[in-house]
Amino acid sequence: MNAKVVVSLKDGILDPEGQAVASALGRMGFDEVKDVRIGKVIEIELEDGIADAEVRVKQMCEQILSNPVIEKFHIQTEQS
Amino acid sequence: MNAKVVVSLKDGILDPEGQAVASALGRMGFDEVKDVRIGKVIEIELEDGIADAEVRVKQMCEQILSNPVIEKFHIQTEQS
Repeated sequence: MNAKVVVSLKDGILDPEGQAVASALGRMGFDEVKDVRIGKVIEIELEDGIADAEVRVKQMCEQILSNPVIEKFHIQTEQS
Repeated sequence: MNAKVVVSLKDGILDPEGQAVASALGRMGFDEVKDVRIGKVIEIELEDGIADAEVRVKQMCEQILSNPVIEKFHIQTEQS
């Protein structure tokens, strides 16, 4: 079983990495770029047959995978 | 218009960051975790009315957003 977690900065939180990429793209001729925001995608392979997998992955997100002060997360689980 | 790019390591490429997270999760009691792999999600806001947006975003991926030696990328475009 696999879970995919997308961790991204909350709206309104400054994203210096994204700004650096946006300005680099502009310098390279990609003038159509208005904004860039960068997050993480965490693919977790879990043992099969975990009944409460979504709950467990939510606990992982809250405890270690995201910083709840500045980041939000979104979980997708799928049978492999 | 928005494009979302997911950049992840190619299969077979070692992911030390993912391994560190996997072992940290194990130490915290999440024994069901078998493997973790970490990638980036890059959300790009583009000016509206770009005809060949998908082609342009593919060029961005090849030129700056990914390292084609060790990384693969996947593009999703959507009208905002």
